[in-house]
Amino acid sequence: MDYRRRLRKLRIGLDANGFDAMVVSHLPNVRYLSGFTGSSAALIVTGTRAVLFTDGRYRAQAREEVKSARTVIGTKPPIAAAGEWLADNRNLLGRGLLSVGIEGEHLTVASQKRLKAELGSTFRLKDAPPLIEQGRMVKDRNEIDCIRNAIEVGAGLFDSALATIRPGTKEIDVAGAMEFEARRRGAEGMSFETIIASGARSALPHGRASRQPIPRDGFVVCDFGVILEGYCSDRTRTVYVGTASSGARAFYAAILDAQRAAIEAIKPGVSCEAVDRAARKVLQKNKLARYFTHSTGHGVGLEIHEAPRVAAGQEQLLKSGMVITVEPGAYIPGQWGVRIEDVVVVTETGCEVLAPKQKEFIEV
Amino acid sequence: MDYRRRLRKLRIGLDANGFDAMVVSHLPNVRYLSGFTGSSAALIVTGTRAVLFTDGRYRAQAREEVKSARTVIGTKPPIAAAGEWLADNRNLLGRGLLSVGIEGEHLTVASQKRLKAELGSTFRLKDAPPLIEQGRMVKDRNEIDCIRNAIEVGAGLFDSALATIRPGTKEIDVAGAMEFEARRRGAEGMSFETIIASGARSALPHGRASRQPIPRDGFVVCDFGVILEGYCSDRTRTVYVGTASSGARAFYAAILDAQRAAIEAIKPGVSCEAVDRAARKVLQKNKLARYFTHSTGHGVGLEIHEAPRVAAGQEQLLKSGMVITVEPGAYIPGQWGVRIEDVVVVTETGCEVLAPKQKEFIEV
Repeated sequence: MDYRRRLRKLRIGLDANGFDAMVVSHLPNVRYLSGFTGSSAALIVTGTRAVLFTDGRYRAQAREEVKSARTVIGTKPPIAAAGEWLADNRNLLGRGLLSVGIEGEHLTVASQKRLKAELGSTFRLKDAPPLIEQGRMVKDRNEIDCIRNAIEVGAGLFDSALATIRPGTKEIDVAGAMEFEARRRGAEGMSFETIIASGARSALPHGRASRQPIPRDGFVVCDFGVILEGYCSDRTRTVYVGTASSGARAFYAAILDAQRAAIEAIKPGVSCEAVDRAARKVLQKNKLARYFTHSTGHGVGLEIHEAPRVAAGQEQLLKSGMVITVEPGAYIPGQWGVRIEDVVVVTETGCEVLAPKQKEFIEV
Repeated sequence: MDYRRRLRKLRIGLDANGFDAMVVSHLPNVRYLSGFTGSSAALIVTGTRAVLFTDGRYRAQAREEVKSARTVIGTKPPIAAAGEWLADNRNLLGRGLLSVGIEGEHLTVASQKRLKAELGSTFRLKDAPPLIEQGRMVKDRNEIDCIRNAIEVGAGLFDSALATIRPGTKEIDVAGAMEFEARRRGAEGMSFETIIASGARSALPHGRASRQPIPRDGFVVCDFGVILEGYCSDRTRTVYVGTASSGARAFYAAILDAQRAAIEAIKPGVSCEAVDRAARKVLQKNKLARYFTHSTGHGVGLEIHEAPRVAAGQEQLLKSGMVITVEPGAYIPGQWGVRIEDVVVVTETGCEVLAPKQKEFIEV
């Protein structure tokens, strides 16, 4: 990954917004800019310097991973160590009141207080615009390769689901088989808690695998993802256990149509809300719009949920290199739910669906 | 769980500290007070009311889980919805400037801003003391039962580790086998990323399972935990692959002695730092103290790391019902590391080690 290019881009943004320095504390952003994967760190970025603060547990790891920044190992919380460094190196940064950017969406009130206490009165903390998140929205070729690998590996887990989903099998045993397969395929972990929601539980959009046995008859929503080289996969497939009624088949077909319509709408220059609208329109035609209770998708990368949001009111325009999920669903409380989700890469002319297989209606 | 008792206790603390209300946003604290397990929520606690805010995804779940608070389903971020409710119900709370507690260690700067924007000028936000965390330190009987179950299930995973740890097996395949077993035994998930650190990687205290094959000769540190009914287990065992030198055996024995000494020191009225000191003293005698680069332990419960910290400088006194880890270790960079960890419950007269088995030196 070209960390120096990312830092350069951030510096241009900081300069344009009048910041003398930024304290990056959100760990995926620290990783994006430095390569550091530890669980405790803060990164200072000034016009000319980049300094990473972590603790003794990560000495060897930081040396190995971080090439784009100087590393400081300390015993203070990293955010306080960063503040101390800024205060000590005040003269390097400029004269007068210095403006230091923070990540207000991630920094806690207590950490901000610690940072302020170190900095004293010649610094002014200010919420920075989401410069790093904006940079992260458009993936470079290395990142897309990583995501492609993660999606390929993640897609393979569905075979384990198909092999284990049977009436009477517990939902968590299906999840267990998928997670075992994830490790076998080299995953660092799951990108979120595996959702296996069967029977009436399929109507819970966030039905994490429970100890409930899969009923004889009904939908099973499987939403799952792996982490590979730090990048997340995200995928949902829904199958039917038993013999589906024509109503169940029509319900499934409506969701699949909505997903197709959203995917067809995707190309550079189209807004995120337009993609969301394309899915919603199909569900409206099928009188299911009121059961589509979440947004159509979200960015995926180092985080399972990142910018952009593919939802009503989101005017962000798609650009080539963005990676988003397309995951319409509908949920009839107490009865059933279906969701179908793929990850797509926005290309110059449209989009590429990663591992688009296994979307036909499946009875097990 | 007796949520109403917990709310009563919090109200006494709020009253004693001059707060008219508190906005609880840290999800484990929300769960502790209300039973709600969803991923998006805020809870207002006033002298007479408790109101939980979440979104449409969690309508059915909130109805099922939350008995101690009224539930409000909305489309705003829960923290903003909480602010709006306080502003709308201002007259219920009292006259003059009202003091609202926040959780500064958890609430982000941006969320605080959103909350302020809703509240207007007749409310004053103030960082609340860690009243809920203090309450959570001492577990009630139900919680200890949950933790005991989690530890029992978690302990069983080590058999899967022993069955798979062989020269040439990848670390992540050992983790995969353990995680599969966790699901088989009913776990909701792992309480943290499984650590399998073999060979020279055993010297990394946080060596998450990697794709590295286990070498022919050396220690393998296995640190793992499950979540069961929301409660975390935490356990470390270290085994030797190959035939251990007397040096390796002596190194292991020193860590085990340190752990024993710490466990023997535990009883009500003893400070956390004294427990830490007891472990450190044994390692000092063995000239290993400088390689013991982390603290001796931490509280465990709804979170894998919670109060109290068992570390130098921690004056907190142990009380019956506290649940802490005891996990001394030593790490010689580039060579090897050993850690042994158990969870103990502080009793009236000392402590009970949960599932204390399999601590003898094991060669595989």
